[in-house]
Amino acid sequence: MSEFKNVTIIREANVYFNGGVTSRTIIFDSGCKKTLGVMMPGDYEFNTGSAELMEILSGDLDVLLPGADSWQTIKGGESFDVPANAAFKLKVKSLTDYCCSFLD
Amino acid sequence: MSEFKNVTIIREANVYFNGGVTSRTIIFDSGCKKTLGVMMPGDYEFNTGSAELMEILSGDLDVLLPGADSWQTIKGGESFDVPANAAFKLKVKSLTDYCCSFLD
Repeated sequence: MSEFKNVTIIREANVYFNGGVTSRTIIFDSGCKKTLGVMMPGDYEFNTGSAELMEILSGDLDVLLPGADSWQTIKGGESFDVPANAAFKLKVKSLTDYCCSFLD
Repeated sequence: MSEFKNVTIIREANVYFNGGVTSRTIIFDSGCKKTLGVMMPGDYEFNTGSAELMEILSGDLDVLLPGADSWQTIKGGESFDVPANAAFKLKVKSLTDYCCSFLD
């Protein structure tokens, strides 16, 4: 368990894929933004605006990163980067808890 | 949309009912604690420790409060109180976004 201190949290959830993916947005004093989210098992495709660091807190998924030929397996405690203005695909195999940091 | 400022958020999600209900815990300077959560459609029974104020930000559910004979319909923008050390049942009819405040 860890925590973020002195943050602002948007009260309302972000809901994607009929609730397959939900998150809350937190904003730091520096203006940096992260989302803390949960993904139910399923297949998803996301489009980035900013570059993102996806930290997987718990769960199991495969990710197809932009330009990649093969899927990469990611488990709790691992992370991956996604460039700005790109699409990536996920196969979420078990309920996945994540922290997404927006990098620019 | 509204926000809570200067809070601490526990990074890891709380997961109940195989992900049917997930939430994040936020702690205020005063020590007060709330959870911001999402409930997928389904039937759930919860047990309280502290008394709780459940604010439904969006969604539709029926609640059977402790000692009540009949179910009460609750929609986004409405709320209900649950006493400490009690059990209550929910029938969540559409994805429900909530804010739960622990009152003692």
